[in-house]
Amino acid sequence: MLPFISEEFGNPQSLNEAGMVAKNVVEEARTKVADLIHTSPEEIIFTSSGSEANNTALWGLARAQTGKGKHIILSAVEHFSVLHPARAMAEEGWEVTQVPVDRFGRVDPSNVEQAMRKDTVLVSIQHANSEVGTVQPISEIGRIAREKGVVFHTDAVATAGTLPVDVKVLNADALSLAAGMFYGPKGAAALYIRRGIRIRPLITGGIQEGGRRAGTEDVPAIVGMGRACELAKAEMGERNTKVRPLRDKLEKFLTETIDRLRVNGHTTERLPGYLSVCVEYVEGETILLTLSTQGIQAASGSACASRALKESHVLAAMGVPPEVAQGSLLFSLGKDSSEEDVRRAASSLPPIVARLRAMSPLYKP
Amino acid sequence: MLPFISEEFGNPQSLNEAGMVAKNVVEEARTKVADLIHTSPEEIIFTSSGSEANNTALWGLARAQTGKGKHIILSAVEHFSVLHPARAMAEEGWEVTQVPVDRFGRVDPSNVEQAMRKDTVLVSIQHANSEVGTVQPISEIGRIAREKGVVFHTDAVATAGTLPVDVKVLNADALSLAAGMFYGPKGAAALYIRRGIRIRPLITGGIQEGGRRAGTEDVPAIVGMGRACELAKAEMGERNTKVRPLRDKLEKFLTETIDRLRVNGHTTERLPGYLSVCVEYVEGETILLTLSTQGIQAASGSACASRALKESHVLAAMGVPPEVAQGSLLFSLGKDSSEEDVRRAASSLPPIVARLRAMSPLYKP
Repeated sequence: MLPFISEEFGNPQSLNEAGMVAKNVVEEARTKVADLIHTSPEEIIFTSSGSEANNTALWGLARAQTGKGKHIILSAVEHFSVLHPARAMAEEGWEVTQVPVDRFGRVDPSNVEQAMRKDTVLVSIQHANSEVGTVQPISEIGRIAREKGVVFHTDAVATAGTLPVDVKVLNADALSLAAGMFYGPKGAAALYIRRGIRIRPLITGGIQEGGRRAGTEDVPAIVGMGRACELAKAEMGERNTKVRPLRDKLEKFLTETIDRLRVNGHTTERLPGYLSVCVEYVEGETILLTLSTQGIQAASGSACASRALKESHVLAAMGVPPEVAQGSLLFSLGKDSSEEDVRRAASSLPPIVARLRAMSPLYKP
Repeated sequence: MLPFISEEFGNPQSLNEAGMVAKNVVEEARTKVADLIHTSPEEIIFTSSGSEANNTALWGLARAQTGKGKHIILSAVEHFSVLHPARAMAEEGWEVTQVPVDRFGRVDPSNVEQAMRKDTVLVSIQHANSEVGTVQPISEIGRIAREKGVVFHTDAVATAGTLPVDVKVLNADALSLAAGMFYGPKGAAALYIRRGIRIRPLITGGIQEGGRRAGTEDVPAIVGMGRACELAKAEMGERNTKVRPLRDKLEKFLTETIDRLRVNGHTTERLPGYLSVCVEYVEGETILLTLSTQGIQAASGSACASRALKESHVLAAMGVPPEVAQGSLLFSLGKDSSEEDVRRAASSLPPIVARLRAMSPLYKP
């Protein structure tokens, strides 16, 4: 990325030398993104964030088909950047069906099938959940949508770059991914749109991205995303082979040392570095801040909502009672996590929980 | 920017140490952006590009007032990121009035006043034109809109960071600016929204930017924008004192050495580094590519449209005949331009034009 921040300032749309240089590196990056998800570069639109990709997919795919109908299908555990556009669409006359999830956070494909109507124009179901890590049966959902001739989008922001993502295997017509989720920079994300699928742009007024997304290309961020895709593709197996046992070790230790601790998400169909737990009788936020002072940076579900301190719609949809959900914590492990990190997290949490519970009038050991 | 690309990866929305660091630098940058345009940080929303800021302003300000009416007013020379959303809005039932410009590209404020109706919800007129550099009488247009109680947005992407921009002096309720126009990075831009003015977000689903723009903040780009604002504010006078005479020198030389060369834009009310010309009997694109091989990077109007090779709507609105407009060229001079650069550009262009005209059957010297 550095040359494009410090020396090469060309605008990819400019018909001059600097512009050509910028254009070339953007197109190289586009090929790398396409390679990661097993498609072709013409089917990739760069956006500034996963949220923008999701908003573009929802509004853009639905608006391109208003002649067919105004019904869309989502799951109850989508990211807010899918749920909120859908809510806005509902205010403008679209009908939205939300299919439920089971207690592991999984969508049953037959529920998607049953929700389909003649006027259904779009199904959008996430590949994996960004709060609890549950991976959905996307290939099956995509197959159902394809058979019914309904456009299918999947928010793969939590999986792309971490798990294998092949748009053909997933039967996806559209797919969102974001570089920041797999060691790439902020400011770069992408939307895959299968050839032949029509979409109306969310940001209009420029010929960038084939007229499907206006705005000067963020060249350094895009270059960084390309490189992150290349590395993810090459190292994915190795990274997951390392991360999964570390996560399992942390999970085993915490469940053994802290009583009334619930592990969220699916037991096997789960992102390899994800460990979401609910610690009963404590506030997750309080634990977070205490861990933070000890140099352990955990999260409470999605960063996009964490400062809002609202109850997680994901845990609610999974049937977790509000008083349990308030104790939710997400540990995410990555390629640079070590045995030592796990040991520290595992040994830090129990005393914090014990101290907080000692102050709770409700907790009885 | 570098620490936020190489070491500090926090998400400003995360409740942990790294998140706090990121949040702080984003808010520092927000204050610097606000300082540049003489407003307060709460009135600044970061976006990924000037185009996104303009799209957000058009859709967002209009949609927040649908109870009042569905009429908006623009000029004929707005950037496509204003014109195209307006076109899409027209398809969805809004009425759009475009006020004309004179041969210098200037809007007459009385035309804006006459276009006002009871159901007018938004006036959007650019501060300066990005193709020819003409600066509009924005304070006066803003005053008229304020008197009539109509929300007023100005696209200041071409001026902010280059000319003094004070949202109070301009009587603006909303204003777009982009870092890349004043030596800041790509990927960072902003929309000013005056306190009390309602706006609906374009990208929804996150609590970032006070719920007015979802998506993980592009921390390095935002930090770069803050610094660019700070430098622009400090150096603006000095930069313009240097650039304007260089531009005037280039203009004088070209008009004296090339016949049938027309200077576009206003004689005095023009961006200091802008020199847009039309060279009759030649194709601007051909000149561009030839100049480029000599290391001189000019443009043909807006980069956002240049690869589309269409006739400029700006020159057309100024009454430039199509056969003249096709020979348009934009030289933009900046803080690092030198006497030597001007000398090279001035001496390179005449022989190229002479060679091309020698091949034109229409040109008679």
